[in-house]
Amino acid sequence: MSLSAVHTRDDDYPTRSSKEEWFKRKDPAFWGRWSPQAPLTRAQTEEFEKNGFLVLRNVFSDAEITRLQEESQRLRSGEAGLRSDNVVTEPGSDEVRTIFRLEDESPVFNRLARDERIAGKVRFLLDDALYLHQSRLNYKPGFTGKEFYWHSDFETWHAEDGMPRMRAISASVLLTDNDALNGPLMLMPGSHKYFISCAGETPEDNHKSSLKRQEVGVPSPDALSEMAGMFGIEYASGKAGTVILFECNTMHGSNGNITPFPRSNAFFVYNAWTNRVENPFAASKPRPAFLANRDPKGPIEIVSGKIQ
Amino acid sequence: MSLSAVHTRDDDYPTRSSKEEWFKRKDPAFWGRWSPQAPLTRAQTEEFEKNGFLVLRNVFSDAEITRLQEESQRLRSGEAGLRSDNVVTEPGSDEVRTIFRLEDESPVFNRLARDERIAGKVRFLLDDALYLHQSRLNYKPGFTGKEFYWHSDFETWHAEDGMPRMRAISASVLLTDNDALNGPLMLMPGSHKYFISCAGETPEDNHKSSLKRQEVGVPSPDALSEMAGMFGIEYASGKAGTVILFECNTMHGSNGNITPFPRSNAFFVYNAWTNRVENPFAASKPRPAFLANRDPKGPIEIVSGKIQ
Repeated sequence: MSLSAVHTRDDDYPTRSSKEEWFKRKDPAFWGRWSPQAPLTRAQTEEFEKNGFLVLRNVFSDAEITRLQEESQRLRSGEAGLRSDNVVTEPGSDEVRTIFRLEDESPVFNRLARDERIAGKVRFLLDDALYLHQSRLNYKPGFTGKEFYWHSDFETWHAEDGMPRMRAISASVLLTDNDALNGPLMLMPGSHKYFISCAGETPEDNHKSSLKRQEVGVPSPDALSEMAGMFGIEYASGKAGTVILFECNTMHGSNGNITPFPRSNAFFVYNAWTNRVENPFAASKPRPAFLANRDPKGPIEIVSGKIQ
Repeated sequence: MSLSAVHTRDDDYPTRSSKEEWFKRKDPAFWGRWSPQAPLTRAQTEEFEKNGFLVLRNVFSDAEITRLQEESQRLRSGEAGLRSDNVVTEPGSDEVRTIFRLEDESPVFNRLARDERIAGKVRFLLDDALYLHQSRLNYKPGFTGKEFYWHSDFETWHAEDGMPRMRAISASVLLTDNDALNGPLMLMPGSHKYFISCAGETPEDNHKSSLKRQEVGVPSPDALSEMAGMFGIEYASGKAGTVILFECNTMHGSNGNITPFPRSNAFFVYNAWTNRVENPFAASKPRPAFLANRDPKGPIEIVSGKIQ
C-alpha cells in the first residue's frame, strides 16, 4: 500500500501529516458501566476517566513481589536464553534496557499479565475481552538511565501498528521502589482527552531509532508547553508492587536517572479484542511482531489466586 | 611543575591517584561560633553543619525576584554583549547553558553576590572575609536540559584550582520555580564529612570536557552507591527566590529535564579570603580564570538593602 493510499483512508485520528493539529478524543476512556460489583470503586473509575491513569497500591503480597523481582533478575542475568530480537540495550552500552514479549519469555510474567487484579480491572474499564498488544520488562539502570521523551502511545500504535480506536490500557507494575528522583513515569492528567496529530512523515523502520530516542510522532515543544500548562505534570511513585494503569492516549515520559537506584517495571499493553490492529494508518509497513502483536491466538485467560 | 612534584606535596586531600579512597574531612564545616546576634538561628547553623547544606526561603521580595529574572533574560537574550569565553552552550545546540563571571557581566548580579542576606550568612559560617572563587548563571532549558553527574566541587577545586582547605560555600539562588521533576539540585546530606579521593590522572585541559560531562574527579558507582546508602539523597526544591547554601564538599548532582519547565539559577562560590588558591594539587596547570579566580583584588564588600 502506498502512503497516499494510507492517507486517504477514513480516519478519526489522522497523524504524521504536514502540520500539527489538536483533535478532541472521539472514544470514551471508560467503556463499561459501573456497578457495585465492579472491580474498581466508583471513585477509582471516575479518576481513571478524568485523569487517564490510576495508581493501585498494595495489590500483591510481599512474597509475590519478591517472586517477580527474582524472575526479573533471572531474565536480565544473561542465563535466561532470551531471543535476541526481544532485547534492546542502553545507548552506548550492553546493559539490557528492555525485554519484549515478556509473556513468551517468562511463565511468571505470563501469569502476572493474566492476573485478575490487573487484567480484571482493565477488562472492566474496556468492557471487552483482552489480548496483549505489547509487553515488556523495562530496566532503567542507576547512574546512566536515559530519558523517555513525551509521547502518546496511541499515536504510534495507530500510525505505525494500525490500532483503530482508543480502546487500550497499559499496566506498569513497579519492580523497584520509585520516587521522584530515579526517573519515574510522568503523566499529564487529562491529556488523554486530546489527540495531538503529529507533524512529519514516518521514516522507514522508524521503530529502530524511536525505541532509543523518539523523534517522529512526538508533539512539538509548543504543544507540550501548552498541554503542561493546561493539565500539569504528575509523577507516579510508589513501592515495588505498585500498579499504574494508564490510558493509551495519556501523554507521558520520564527523565533520566543519575541516582544509584535503578528503576524497573513490567509493562503490559491490553488491547480490546474488538480493537485488533489493521494496516498502519500512517506508515508504509507495520512494525515487527515484538512491538505489536498482529496475530493474537485469542483473548487472554484471566486467572485469580496468588502468583507463585 | 611536573605531576610527580605535585604528588609529593604535603596534602590533606590527595586525589587523582591510582585508586579511590575515603578520607575523613579534616576541616570544620562551620568555622565560627554561634551567638544570638548571628545571622542564622542556632538550628539553621547546626543543620548546615550536619547536612552540608541549608535551604533559605522568602529571602527576597517579589519585586527583587522579578528584577533578577529580568536580568537573567537580558543576559541570555544575545543582546548583552557577553564575553564569549564566559559562555558555555548545551551539547549539540546553541542554547546558553552557563554564563560565567556573572559579577563582571551584570551589575544586578554583582549586587546580588554581595547581598548581606546571602554573603552575610556565608561570612558567618566561614568566619572570614570572602571573595568569589567562581560565579555563574546556570540555565537548564525545558525538554532538553542535560544532567550534571555526581561530584564534590571541592575535589575539583583542590585538584585543578589549588584550593587548600574545605573553607568555601556555594549559594544557588533559584530564578525559576523548582520541583522534583525539572532537574533540581540533588544532595547527599552528610556526605561533606568524607573526602572521596578519586582515581585517575587529570587529563590536559580537563575542564573543556568536564563542563559538559565530567568523567575524571567523580566517585566510582560503587562509592556513590555506598554514599547514597549511608546518607540518602535529598533534593532542593522551592519557589523562585529560594537560596540553597551548600558546603564545598557536599556530593551533589542533578538529573536531566524533559519537562517544558526550564530551571535557572545564579550560583556564587564564596571562598574564605585566607583560603585563596595556590598551585593545583593534582593537575599540571590551573584552570582558566573564568572557572577559578586566581587573583582577587580584595574581599567583597557586603551590602544591605533591597536589590533594584
